[in-house]
This record gives sequence, C-alpha cells and structure tokens, in this order.
Amino acid sequence: MGKVRVGILGATGAVGQRFVQLLAEHPWFEITVLAGSQRSAGKRYQEAVHWILDTLIPPEIGEMTVVEGIPENLAGRCEVVFSALPSKEARELEPQFAQAGFPVFSNASALRMEPDVPLVIPEVNPEHLALIRVQQERRGWKGFVVTNPNCSTIHLVCALKPLHDAFGLEQVFVTTLQAVSGAGYPGVASLDIVDNLIPYIPNEEEKIESEPLKLLGTLVHQHVEPARFTISAAVHRVPVVDGHTEAVVVKLRTQASLDEVTQALRSFQGVPQRLGLPTAPNPAIILRDEPDRPQPRLDRNAGRGMATTIGRLRPDPILDYKFVVLGHNTIRGAAGASLLNAELALTLGYLDGFVDTTSLRAFQPQPATTL
Amino acid sequence: MGKVRVGILGATGAVGQRFVQLLAEHPWFEITVLAGSQRSAGKRYQEAVHWILDTLIPPEIGEMTVVEGIPENLAGRCEVVFSALPSKEARELEPQFAQAGFPVFSNASALRMEPDVPLVIPEVNPEHLALIRVQQERRGWKGFVVTNPNCSTIHLVCALKPLHDAFGLEQVFVTTLQAVSGAGYPGVASLDIVDNLIPYIPNEEEKIESEPLKLLGTLVHQHVEPARFTISAAVHRVPVVDGHTEAVVVKLRTQASLDEVTQALRSFQGVPQRLGLPTAPNPAIILRDEPDRPQPRLDRNAGRGMATTIGRLRPDPILDYKFVVLGHNTIRGAAGASLLNAELALTLGYLDGFVDTTSLRAFQPQPATTL
Amino acid sequence: MGKVRVGILGATGAVGQRFVQLLAEHPWFEITVLAGSQRSAGKRYQEAVHWILDTLIPPEIGEMTVVEGIPENLAGRCEVVFSALPSKEARELEPQFAQAGFPVFSNASALRMEPDVPLVIPEVNPEHLALIRVQQERRGWKGFVVTNPNCSTIHLVCALKPLHDAFGLEQVFVTTLQAVSGAGYPGVASLDIVDNLIPYIPNEEEKIESEPLKLLGTLVHQHVEPARFTISAAVHRVPVVDGHTEAVVVKLRTQASLDEVTQALRSFQGVPQRLGLPTAPNPAIILRDEPDRPQPRLDRNAGRGMATTIGRLRPDPILDYKFVVLGHNTIRGAAGASLLNAELALTLGYLDGFVDTTSLRAFQPQPATTL
Amino acid sequence: MGKVRVGILGATGAVGQRFVQLLAEHPWFEITVLAGSQRSAGKRYQEAVHWILDTLIPPEIGEMTVVEGIPENLAGRCEVVFSALPSKEARELEPQFAQAGFPVFSNASALRMEPDVPLVIPEVNPEHLALIRVQQERRGWKGFVVTNPNCSTIHLVCALKPLHDAFGLEQVFVTTLQAVSGAGYPGVASLDIVDNLIPYIPNEEEKIESEPLKLLGTLVHQHVEPARFTISAAVHRVPVVDGHTEAVVVKLRTQASLDEVTQALRSFQGVPQRLGLPTAPNPAIILRDEPDRPQPRLDRNAGRGMATTIGRLRPDPILDYKFVVLGHNTIRGAAGASLLNAELALTLGYLDGFVDTTSLRAFQPQPATTL
Repeated sequence: MGKVRVGILGATGAVGQRFVQLLAEHPWFEITVLAGSQRSAGKRYQEAVHWILDTLIPPEIGEMTVVEGIPENLAGRCEVVFSALPSKEARELEPQFAQAGFPVFSNASALRMEPDVPLVIPEVNPEHLALIRVQQERRGWKGFVVTNPNCSTIHLVCALKPLHDAFGLEQVFVTTLQAVSGAGYPGVASLDIVDNLIPYIPNEEEKIESEPLKLLGTLVHQHVEPARFTISAAVHRVPVVDGHTEAVVVKLRTQASLDEVTQALRSFQGVPQRLGLPTAPNPAIILRDEPDRPQPRLDRNAGRGMATTIGRLRPDPILDYKFVVLGHNTIRGAAGASLLNAELALTLGYLDGFVDTTSLRAFQPQPATTL
Repeated sequence: MGKVRVGILGATGAVGQRFVQLLAEHPWFEITVLAGSQRSAGKRYQEAVHWILDTLIPPEIGEMTVVEGIPENLAGRCEVVFSALPSKEARELEPQFAQAGFPVFSNASALRMEPDVPLVIPEVNPEHLALIRVQQERRGWKGFVVTNPNCSTIHLVCALKPLHDAFGLEQVFVTTLQAVSGAGYPGVASLDIVDNLIPYIPNEEEKIESEPLKLLGTLVHQHVEPARFTISAAVHRVPVVDGHTEAVVVKLRTQASLDEVTQALRSFQGVPQRLGLPTAPNPAIILRDEPDRPQPRLDRNAGRGMATTIGRLRPDPILDYKFVVLGHNTIRGAAGASLLNAELALTLGYLDGFVDTTSLRAFQPQPATTL
Repeated sequence: MGKVRVGILGATGAVGQRFVQLLAEHPWFEITVLAGSQRSAGKRYQEAVHWILDTLIPPEIGEMTVVEGIPENLAGRCEVVFSALPSKEARELEPQFAQAGFPVFSNASALRMEPDVPLVIPEVNPEHLALIRVQQERRGWKGFVVTNPNCSTIHLVCALKPLHDAFGLEQVFVTTLQAVSGAGYPGVASLDIVDNLIPYIPNEEEKIESEPLKLLGTLVHQHVEPARFTISAAVHRVPVVDGHTEAVVVKLRTQASLDEVTQALRSFQGVPQRLGLPTAPNPAIILRDEPDRPQPRLDRNAGRGMATTIGRLRPDPILDYKFVVLGHNTIRGAAGASLLNAELALTLGYLDGFVDTTSLRAFQPQPATTL
Repeated sequence: MGKVRVGILGATGAVGQRFVQLLAEHPWFEITVLAGSQRSAGKRYQEAVHWILDTLIPPEIGEMTVVEGIPENLAGRCEVVFSALPSKEARELEPQFAQAGFPVFSNASALRMEPDVPLVIPEVNPEHLALIRVQQERRGWKGFVVTNPNCSTIHLVCALKPLHDAFGLEQVFVTTLQAVSGAGYPGVASLDIVDNLIPYIPNEEEKIESEPLKLLGTLVHQHVEPARFTISAAVHRVPVVDGHTEAVVVKLRTQASLDEVTQALRSFQGVPQRLGLPTAPNPAIILRDEPDRPQPRLDRNAGRGMATTIGRLRPDPILDYKFVVLGHNTIRGAAGASLLNAELALTLGYLDGFVDTTSLRAFQPQPATTL
C-alpha cells in the first residue's frame, strides 16, 4: 500500500503552489485532491493556476481536476488536509473540515491564537501538539486543526528559541524587510515596489508581536501559558521575490557573553532534526560569520528553504545583542512549516486512526511522551 | 557684480553631480571650478563624468575643463569650496584648502567628529558654526571646514530634533533601508542587489550611533558637549535608487502623549525656514497620516529633496514611540546639506571677508548672535 | 475671465493622475471636474485616488469631490473633456460626451482607428484634426472626439516621421521594452516583474503595427489614406517604472547616408514647436551620440517628459538603419499627448464656439489652413 | 581509479563559480585545481571568491588553495582544463595550456572565431570537433582548445538549428534582453540598472551577428564554411539576475507552415540527447504554448539551466515567423556549455590519450565517425 493521501485547500494560490511543489516528491504524503475556489473548480490544475514558481508543475498534478474546497468533496479521497486558505475562508472552512474528521495542517492565521489550537514550530514547541486532544474534546471534533505561525514569526522564533532556552528573553525589537511573495498573488503592485519599498503590511506587526509568546509559552493544564517578554515589530515590504530579512535586537534575562550566545545558536538541535523528519533541515539554524550575510538571494534556499540563517551577531549599545535573521517565507515560512508539522504529528502518533503508516518509507513512530 | 564663485571637489562622483545640479541655478552661488582626480583633470566635465542623474548636465558646465583638486588650481578662481571627496582624500585635502584660505563645506566624513570642526544641520544646531572661530584659531587657518553628517544621520536627526527639544531623548533604535545611490558610483554591484538586499554597510552603523550626539550636543566653552542618549543602529542596503528609509523607536525622558509628539513634529520650524534660505524646505518636516507612507519613490523629492518625511507614528510596546523617517540621501543627505550649511554661514556672516555679498539677490545678512 | 475649464474622465487612474499633474499648472486650462467610477463618486479626490506619482496631489484638487463620469455631471461645469478611461468604458462613454456637446481629447484606444476620428500627434499629422468636421457631420455630434495613439506608438512615430518625410519607409521592425506604469494600477503584479520580464502585452503588438499607418497616412477627401509600409512589433514588459524603450530597424524607400539620416532626425521641427504650444518640447526629438543612451531612468524626463530621445543610430546588416527610441509613456505617451492635442486644437480654432480664449495668457490663434 | 581530474581557470569569477557548482557533483569530472589571478593565488577558495550563487560553496572545494593560472601550476594535477578567463587573458593563456598538453574547454571569446578552433554547441555542430586535429597539426600543440559561443548566441542558435536544418535561414533579426550576471562580477553598477535598462553591451552585437554563422556552417576540407544568412542584433541589459531573453524574427529559405515550424522545434533531438550525456537536457528545446512565456524567472532553470525555451511562435507581418527564446546565461550560456563540450569530446574519443575512462560511471564511448 501507498502513501498518506492528502488534499490541499487553496491549492492555486502562492502558498498552495508551494504545497504542491513540496508534496510532489514527499516520501510519506501524496496529493490526491486539489481544492480551490468556485471559480477554479472543474478546471484542470494547470489551467486554474497562475504558476509563479521556477519549477515545472508536476505533470500528473497539472492534469488533476480542481474541486471546490468543501469537506464533501474531499471525503474518502484523502486522509489529511493542508490549508493554504486566506484567513477569512480559513476561519469558516477549517472547522468544518476538522468536524468532518480531517486532521488539518493550516498555514492560515485565522485560528492560530485560539487557546485550544496548537500553534507549532516543531523545533520550538513540539509538545504543544498535545492541545489536539483538548481541542477535540472541547469542540467535539473527530479531526483537528494544527497551525503554524506567520512567515516572519517562524524565522524570528527559530532564532529566539535557543536564546530563550539558555538565557531567557526580556525584550525583542524586530524590523522586517519582507519579500513580495509573502503577499500572495497578485499581491503587491509592481508600481508600489519597483524602485520603492512600503513600510507597512496590514496586521503583520500584531502577529509578530503576539505569536512568538504563544510559541515560546509553556503548556500547563491543557493550555499554553504565554512567554513573558515583550516584542516590538516594524515591518516593511521590499523588492525581493522570496526571503524575509529581520533585524533583531534582544535583551536577555541572564547575562551572556558573545561566545555563549554564539554557542547557543550554533549548537541548537531540535526535535525534527533528532527524529530525522523528511522535511527537517539539518542544521535548523545556520550561523554565518561574514559581515554581509545573510542575504535573501543567497541564503533563502539554505536547507532546501527550511533553514533559518543568522548573521551579524554583535553586541548592542542599548540592549544585549543584535543580529540579522533570514529565511524563506513561502517554504519554511508557510507550506514547509505546515508540512513539517504534519510529519511531526504523524511520527508522534497524532494521526493514528486517521492514516495507515505501515508502508511508509523511512518512517519511525515515536511516542508523544518522549518529547 | 555677480554671485559667489564656488569650486566643487570630487565633482565627477555621485555627490559631486548633485552639487553641480543644485548649484547650477542657485541665486547666490555660481560654479567656476570643477575639480576631480588626476584621471579626470584636463577633460571637459561632460567627458569626465558618468552622469547618473535624470536631468541634463547644464550645458555650460558640461563644457568646463576639470582641474586636479589641489588648492593652487582653485586659487583666485573661486571663493568657496564644496567637497564631495571620498573620506580618505578629504582627510588629506580639506585641511590644505582651509589652510590656503578657503571656506570648505564638506560632505565627507573625515573631519566630522573633530572637536573643533562644526558638524551642522541648519535646522538642528546652527549655533555650532561658532566652532569656525575655534578651529581657525587652533589650527592657524585662514579658511575653515564645516561638515554635514552622514546621509542617514541627517534625516534621523531632523526627526529627533523636535522630540529632543520637547521631551528629551534617552534611547533610540534605528534600522535603515538605504538606497544604492548612497554608495556612490559604481558602488553596489547589480548582482548584489537585484532581488536581494545587503544587511551591512561598512562603518555606517558607527556613524549613525555617534554623529547625532554631536549634532544634538550643546556648545559650551568652545566645544560641543555631546547629547546624552544612546543610539543603536542596524543598516541595510536595498534595491531603491534614491531615498533612505529608517524605522525608528524612541524612549523619551519626559512622558508625552501621542498628540504632544505629533504636535512637536508638525509645528517644528528651524532657523533656515525662518531665514528663508534658498535651499531650505518649508516645512522641514512633513508628518504624514497614511498608514503606508513614507515611501522612497513617492516621498524622497518632498521639498525638492530637502524635506524629511515622517509617517506611521505610533506607540511602541517596549519604549515610547515608533515611526518611519524618509529623506533623499544625495540631496538633503549630502550635497543639499553642504549647500544649506553654506547658505547659513553666508547669512550669518561667517563668509564675510571671503566673499562680497552686495549684489546677491534676496540676500539678508543676520548677526550670528541672533540664533 | 479665466482659463478654459476642463473635466477629466478616469481621473483616479494612472493616466488620470498624469492629467491632474500636467493640468494643475497649465496656462490655458484649469481642472473644474474630476470624474471617476461609481465607487469613487462622492469621495474627495485625495481619498478616492491611490496616488502613484512622486509629486504631491495639488492641494486644491485633492479637496475636489469626484463625480461619476456621465455627461450630465459635467454639463455647465467644464467646456472640454480629457479622457483617461479604459478602452471599454471609452467606447461607450466618449460618444455620449461628444454628442452632449463636449470636445473630448482621449487617450483611450477605443475610437482611434475609426475612419472619422482624428488620431493625432501634433508633430506628425496636425492636419488630421480636419476630420473633426467630418466626424461631426456624419454623426450629428455637436462635440467631437480627438484621440492620440498608444504609448509605444507615439514615440515610435515621432522617430519615424522625419525619416518617412525625407526618405519614405518600407519596413519597420520594433521590439519594445515597456515600463510597468503603462499597465496602469495595480497593473503588473510584482511577482511577475521583480527579477523577471514578460514577453507579452495583450493587444499591444496589434496597435503598434496599425496605428502608425494612420498617423503617417494622408488626408484625402475626408478620410485618411494609410501610409504604405509594414511594421512588425514584439513587445515586452520590463521592471522599469516609467519610460518605454524601443529597438527599431528600418528599411527606407530612398537610399540615405548615415549623415542624411542623422540630419533628418536632428533638424526635425514640428508644428507645436513652431507654434510654441505650452506643452510642446523643444526639440521634439533629441538625438544622442553616446553608445549607451537612451536609458529610461536618465532620458524619460527629457523635455519635461514630452521629448522623444533617439540613440545608437547605426547601419543595419539586413535593412538600412537601426536605432533605439525612448520616451515617457504616461507623459508624452498618454496624458501629455492628449493635452498637446487640445492645445493644438485650441490654437487652430477647433474649439471656437466651445471656449472663450480672450483672456488666455500667451495664446495666439492660428487659422487651421496655415498647416 | 577515479574521475577525470580537471582544473578551472578564472575559478573565482561569475562563470568560474558556475563551473565549480556544476562540476562539484559531476559523474565523470572532479575538480582538483582552482586557478585565479595573482591576487587570489595562495588563498583558500572560499576566501578568494565573492560567491554569488544561491547554493553553498561545496565545502571541500571551499578549502582548496587557489593557484595562479599558469600551466606549470596545473601540470600533473589535472588532465583537462576549463577556462572561465576574461577574453584578454584567454588569448594569452589558453594557447599556453594547449601547448603544454592540456585539452582546454573554454568559455572565452578570444579564440572562438579562429579558423582551426572548434566553436561548438553539441546539439548543433558536434562534428566540428574534428577541427581539433587540424588545430593540433597546424599549431604543433599536444593539447587543444575547444570553445563555446557567447551566452546569447548559444540559445539563439539552439533555436535556429532545427529551422536551418528543415527550411534554411535567410535573415534573422534578434533583440536581446540580457541578465546582469552576463556581465560578471561586479559587472553592471546597480545605479545603471535599478529602474533602468541599458541598450548597449560592448562587442555583443558583433558576436551575435557572426558566431551563429560558424556554428551553423559546414565542415569541409578541414575548415568551416560559414552558413549563408544574415543576422541583425540589438542588445539590451535589463534588471534580471539570470536568464537572457531574445526576440527573434526569421526569414526562411523554404516556405513552411506554422505547423511545420512547430513540429521542427518540438521534435528536435540533438546528439547529446541521443548519447545521454550527463549534462544534456532532454528535451534540449522546450516549446511553450502560453501567450506570456518564456519568462526568465520561471524558465531559466528548465533542464537544470541547460534547456532553451521558446514561446510566442507566430507569423511575422514582414518576414516569416517571430518567437521568443530564453535560456540560462551562465549555465547553458557559459559554464554548462563548456562542460557539455567536454562530455561530448570525451565520449567521442577526443580525450583519449589524455584521460583514463575505464572507471567512469555510465560512460559509453562512441566513435567520432558515428555523428
């Protein structure tokens, strides 16, 4: 028997395309349903999509017929759902899918901050997947929804995690320079970005200032106690295709030398690396020494787009340290994040009962309690 | 009789071209000497220069012959010198010109932080021009050197000035997104900046973290007591032709409401505005209400490139307020800054003895003591 | 009494904004009505428009209330109408305005190729304005419609005109590299153009291959006999904000030396230049000698965006000569073209009966028969 | 025993880096010497190079010490040499290497048009490799030099080859839109290309107008009889990182329907495809139907950067057909071209006596006479 059959909601959008690309050759998952808007439904995928990636549409997927994204259309055709829906649609549809018995791995922002919805980065807070049980119980859902954070939040928190673990965080200033692919398609008008930049992205600063606290929070008594530090974010859209750059300044709770901070970042190893999950980059964090790195064109594809690159680590004249974080926004920052969440959930047994793992290549189940 | 005759050092470079452009139709100054490197000397200006501005080279200036930039070549041919020299050349040559009796208005960084060299933004610290006398006395120079700050510092300090005056500054975080013209020509390679950005500019953070303290410092007993607050800078080069954008977070010494801060910025009027100097923008600071402004392509030319535009003023979750500052880096941030310094010096009498102002149009001398 | 009162149809779009910018300080015209879509109607202009130009919205115009673009809303409020409507709306609305008694100067493509509608570049075929009378007679309109060509056609034909007059044209190959502003706003998605180009613009090649033949055609017996040569066009959208570049190869009917071709281009003077029309550039054609010009960023603003710059004139190994043409696509290529047509029509008396010219500054009427 | 040991001349430049990238995992070749300028010699490669590719420097190659590029430094350390030298250095050094007994596969333009130097695209004129014997005999060289054409020529000629074979070519107009990486590093200044393009590249049109005639020429009596058609080229540099786009118009010798032309392009198969050479793309030519393709960002990596993509094939109003050609300029257009030439030469036995092929994986020798 074969792989786990998956459906993609919002398959024709910018993030949906990344799901298609990343899932096309996945060892555990295979795409069996592509769902889109009413306008796309009934068309072949290659006709419905305005493909913006620099690889070809996998031919057999290009020939698949897009269905409208409602649970009935996916029932019996896939066991797991990935969601690249816009926030508004996600808020309405993802619960329907969970109720209909689908595990949903969502990149949408709609449910991220719900108390009983796991917001997870496998390297950061894999144990938060335990909220799945809470969610199912409270809502009476057979399926569930697991979310990943905003594209800027992910790389920021990957960088903060080793520091928070080792020294504690007190204050974080982050200024982002975000790629245009983060706005989807058609997204940013060329007249707004050629020879220009925009110092504003709606709702983005709010997400960056709140999501990390849940991600770095502590799971106690069936809910997440948010981490206790403060974040100030200032966001910018810049004329870069892919790759978000973030200038970060941190104040630590414990004094730490530059060597200690360097060591904490460089030695970081997360659960997905230990488990050898198929999509996990290794290392998860790349710390570069050159004075002028990371740069989006050169570093966004590190770890096949799944790694977080850090550079220019140096003392700060006001707080403790400043550095630059860079990562791919539609791979690790979106579709790849959901995918890694699904790989983690599968490995930890959260998909037991939904899928049959007996024939998966290089698959090694782990008890969730081992974390 | 005519205008004040001026020479330009480094006339063929990116900033030198701005000097040419701004001086070409100036009511008080006229270009009589263009100085360049040995390689340029002897050529007509239009042959020596790789012109990168989107206006024509003024025809009569294009025909002028470039001379090598040593005092003997300018003696008797101009009364005032503008310097667009690279730092290393400036350190060597500008003192020679001052010694030879030229008032030098320099955009170079070489002498900015010398205790007896005025580092001046006319809207910010016009009274620091008094250091001219100190400098002449100490060094035995007949002429003198007046400098303006770094292209990022200027707009930052223009924005900080009203806040520092009204509420006092304690901490300033600034993250810059700087245009490629700031690196001169050829400057940044296209392969380093198309679909990319660079999170590093050599020596730039050091300048931004130090120059504002001198600019906002206090002139006491023939020297400048630096302002007492701390600045943390993180700089980036982005694919924008002209216009530096700066994301700023400030901590004030005195509590201030959003209305009070707004009011302080909006009501600001500087000395050049009161004096009606030819190159002074009015207002010097433009505070915009739109959520997505300022943007370099749209706002860099405000006040003919001499204004500083501020937007997105909002409370900060960690410190007090954050906002975005934008200004033209080669007009107000370079050549226009030196030019406004010269206009101020001329008006305040610091060029008396060097130039004859009797026939200048719309010229009104002011005693330096009125400041 | 004052200036001629004008209304702008499609005032909030990319070309509409250029009309606003160019008309704001016009010696003969003043904007009294701004018309937009139903969605914009009732809003103040500065709220209805997403302003994309790097100058400020003229304050008094920003405060004007946008009306829906139907004749009743402009009746009595303006004497002349400029149209920046999209083609489909233009096809429906412009005849209504003409019927209602308005002279309409349109940038839209809808009616350009109608046999009784003048398609005019004042430097090229001013005498075609005589079609106004034919049009009015045939259609029973009190007003009329005058059109200008496509943004790429205009600069191409400005360059071809002196060659066609002097040597005759037989074949023209043109490959365009067109700026994103030509697609309006939001127009081209940034993901389609950052680090990219698109070798296609819908319907553009057809326009470029047909419009020049009407423009360079001969007015005989109340219709235009098209010029008899063939054009092959290949169009591309490139990541440039403003300024269309066109690589041209021509085969002439008469043999001509490089000197003769140079001379024909350089000595060209058109009717608007002779008449000294306010918006006419002088010279209309700039021929540059540098090997690497024209370039959009450096040359698009020549003649305040109204001139056509030609460079790289050289013999062609297959046909006769090749060269590069460049011009501003939303100034001379759109709004400025309509405006110059209106200036010409006013001067030649075609607006007599519609407007009162007695108090216009620097206005000199000319009999249409003098052409 | 292992792979064929190769050295790279000009290893630190833009094309040199592509050689490193492509050779790093090659089944037949392994890099054993990296040669650079005197300035680079003695440094570790990762210190000497300003790496501009978006993959990592292969770690073991990064550690290699760069040597100065003279034959003595490579003698005994490699059997084959790839040259990414600038033209001037190539003219002097490549003959020295050939004389010293090295087979040299060169991307430089210096020797391309020498009558006894093969200028080869394996899909186009593999039989021209026979000039190797002529060259060795005439010059008394033990080694030899094989060249590949200019980055624009390669993709143009790949597209023309099937048409020339099937219908004969009479006239070709080509207008290029070339990526900045084609100018090497630092190459084009960002101020010359952000929001801009340059309608000129030194010596480029000359190469495009001459090299295809040698490539499509006929090998007779130890020399190449050039093909007899005429090419007119107009070149432009555009703000694209990688990927040259070319707008082409052709006049054929034999009448051909659109279907026949389509069929000729689509059914093309070259010698490298038949031989299954490791770097050969399959298919070599991709013909796309979409109206807006090819585009550099989307299509340059087709066939791992080795394929030529054609689109917008349509009748031309003046000649016969027009279409757009696109290909990667530093992979197929440079380093990949030399590499494929080396694979072809190795397979056809031209490296017998220089290298030992007994242990090469998937290597199948072919007599040169089979072509």
